Amino acid sequence: MSTLALSQLGRRTTEPPVSWLMSTALARPNLISLAAGFTDSESLPVDEARELLLEVLGSAKTGRAALQYGTTAGDAGLRRLTGEHLHRQDGASRPAALYSPERLFISSGSQQLLYLLSECLCEPGDLVLLEDPTYFVYLGIVQSHGLACRGIPLAVDGIDLAHLERTLESLKRSGALRRLKLLYLVTYFQNPTGVSAVWEKKATALELLRRYEKAAGHPIYLLEDAAYRELRFAGDDVPSLLIARRAADRVIYAGTFSKPFATGVRVGYGVVPEALLRVVLRLKANHDFGTSNLLQQLMKRALATGAYDRHLRVLRERYARKAAVMVRAIRQHFPARVEWDEPRGGLYVWARLPNHLKSGMKSRLFRAALRHDVLYVPGELCYAPDPTRPKPNQEMRISFGGASVPDIRTGIARLGATLRELLAA
Amino acid sequence: MSTLALSQLGRRTTEPPVSWLMSTALARPNLISLAAGFTDSESLPVDEARELLLEVLGSAKTGRAALQYGTTAGDAGLRRLTGEHLHRQDGASRPAALYSPERLFISSGSQQLLYLLSECLCEPGDLVLLEDPTYFVYLGIVQSHGLACRGIPLAVDGIDLAHLERTLESLKRSGALRRLKLLYLVTYFQNPTGVSAVWEKKATALELLRRYEKAAGHPIYLLEDAAYRELRFAGDDVPSLLIARRAADRVIYAGTFSKPFATGVRVGYGVVPEALLRVVLRLKANHDFGTSNLLQQLMKRALATGAYDRHLRVLRERYARKAAVMVRAIRQHFPARVEWDEPRGGLYVWARLPNHLKSGMKSRLFRAALRHDVLYVPGELCYAPDPTRPKPNQEMRISFGGASVPDIRTGIARLGATLRELLAA
Repeated sequence: MSTLALSQLGRRTTEPPVSWLMSTALARPNLISLAAGFTDSESLPVDEARELLLEVLGSAKTGRAALQYGTTAGDAGLRRLTGEHLHRQDGASRPAALYSPERLFISSGSQQLLYLLSECLCEPGDLVLLEDPTYFVYLGIVQSHGLACRGIPLAVDGIDLAHLERTLESLKRSGALRRLKLLYLVTYFQNPTGVSAVWEKKATALELLRRYEKAAGHPIYLLEDAAYRELRFAGDDVPSLLIARRAADRVIYAGTFSKPFATGVRVGYGVVPEALLRVVLRLKANHDFGTSNLLQQLMKRALATGAYDRHLRVLRERYARKAAVMVRAIRQHFPARVEWDEPRGGLYVWARLPNHLKSGMKSRLFRAALRHDVLYVPGELCYAPDPTRPKPNQEMRISFGGASVPDIRTGIARLGATLRELLAA
Repeated sequence: MSTLALSQLGRRTTEPPVSWLMSTALARPNLISLAAGFTDSESLPVDEARELLLEVLGSAKTGRAALQYGTTAGDAGLRRLTGEHLHRQDGASRPAALYSPERLFISSGSQQLLYLLSECLCEPGDLVLLEDPTYFVYLGIVQSHGLACRGIPLAVDGIDLAHLERTLESLKRSGALRRLKLLYLVTYFQNPTGVSAVWEKKATALELLRRYEKAAGHPIYLLEDAAYRELRFAGDDVPSLLIARRAADRVIYAGTFSKPFATGVRVGYGVVPEALLRVVLRLKANHDFGTSNLLQQLMKRALATGAYDRHLRVLRERYARKAAVMVRAIRQHFPARVEWDEPRGGLYVWARLPNHLKSGMKSRLFRAALRHDVLYVPGELCYAPDPTRPKPNQEMRISFGGASVPDIRTGIARLGATLRELLAA
């Protein structure tokens, strides 16, 4: 007799490898985790959230509204303010219609949007394209839904367009293009590499997808995940793909207030082509009827009062400092043969090891790092299962988000000592 | 070319009929909706929530913890308090292990648990048993996942056990038992009928399912949805099925703080057999990583300080009064030939119309009620598509939850006038 009577999806949904990292971190009190994707704890807006909630719950009228069910799409005022916020980021000269509340919904973190989209577009055996490497939690969704993957190599300014074109061409020849549903890009300070895509690259990627739609027989969407966009501390912002030519019915934009405001609040948002949004909302109604109205009222007031923008300025300075501390420590402690790029935003440094050194969970390096009480995310976890290439196994994601400044210094010193030890051996 | 490239699930997930009811209600400012499942607005715990959040966000330590990511299963303290709360309801003499935090997780409303379970247990074409009538939002999930249904008639004290046994026998004979995954029961002040199941009936249902497992070749779960359990204002509580013999690996209990505390907070919980819970949590990690930590800290403090229990006492008195107002108005205004039962908890009165009168969305009665500016939920929406019986179409769900006391009086008077008009015609 089957022991649990699971569905195929239930059986496919395995424990993510990163759970093991997390339980390892918890079990070793002296361990410094540079692996966790947590945000900076000291700068969390405790006072701001308290004041904002005092206002929301300060009158019976706004208080009751916040404590009652809302709509599945989310609070109309929050959707309007979110659209305006995004509009300002993309540039005031863009058409306001692109940021209309009718194209926007509030999700429980941007993660929920990634899930809903996979559900409503993808059948088991369907195909998605993604960056090589990519966000590993998305890989969990992909595996759970039984999807096939092709990774498109990521350069310092976005994906390799020639590789994208070759991949599309080869899928067309093999007939697999009919199963291709979307290209998933993390376009700002990508998790795990910290890379941001330049405008031309992402716009050209969208054009390329369009060109293969006829052979596919259906739309091929471009899902732009902008989770880290507002965590920029150097350089200029790049407009989102929402402003690209003919983007309105092909580009899905996943944004969030979780990382720039508070991960414990978990309010994200999506801009979705209108016809597709109707389907996404039907699914969301089945998931949860809508994201907590209280959290939405908190974020609405944070946006309306300017508290959100003020917090963002503080946060950017904070991450700039933590990134600088990490960069200085890496310069001091890492062997010169380890390659890495200076971050300009986000939470991560991505380090590439010299040729013979492996970084995976079963590698000597990883075990030695654990002995030195320091944890990183092995690069291999960030690569999709793609039958057309072996999985790279020589990189590390190191985060300056959650660790304190002293822990960043000590953690990098420990990791540097580990690397020197292994490279000397 | 396919216009949206939807998955089968995306295509199956249609607009729920109740959306139309809601938009109708919004479009007519003079309309009194006795249809909405909203909770009472005036008694929402605005002051309590403000004070509790002031405490949570009153120190950097508890504030930062509340604004940071939590775990997928939910806050350990909240899970412990929730288990103890449930233990007290079921009776202090029950084994504490049944309510262990290891068997319990925090969900985004109990709705999310219903969804996660359907996902991890059910394949398209699988079968679920449910009450006839049942909670219509669950029917949306069932349709979205492509599941087949059999309805088990609901009497005043729970489902018809003889019918359940005949159904199981007939499924066994036809071979369809191999597709049966669960029996879904709303056991306290059921939505839509207000019926509560007596202990013997639900315990016998569980025994019956066990007896057919060998023929099914896998476990058949019993999902006990207790969303309205704490909204009791008359009579005694009944223990949950968690205490039944051999329930530990078969009974799933869905509870919520949404309805008894605040629907805008959306914190629910599930008690799930441990091996199954591991799978549910992997799915939840893909959905959202875990329910907002801020909301969890609010509920934890509400439970720990007694604010939750105090609010519940106020709420029960409030609903008792609103129910009494509705009952008096029904006695005064409804024709005697309309049958209904006095509610002892929950939010609903279920009315059965004389033989020839239809209540459905396309019925003369429904259109006449709209002309009289009053809205109810047509009973037909609460019946699963079951090929073995026609869908009943002569009942109304009338809610005293969201409407004000004067609106309950006026709404019932309007509905009474409509009924008299149609019955006289």
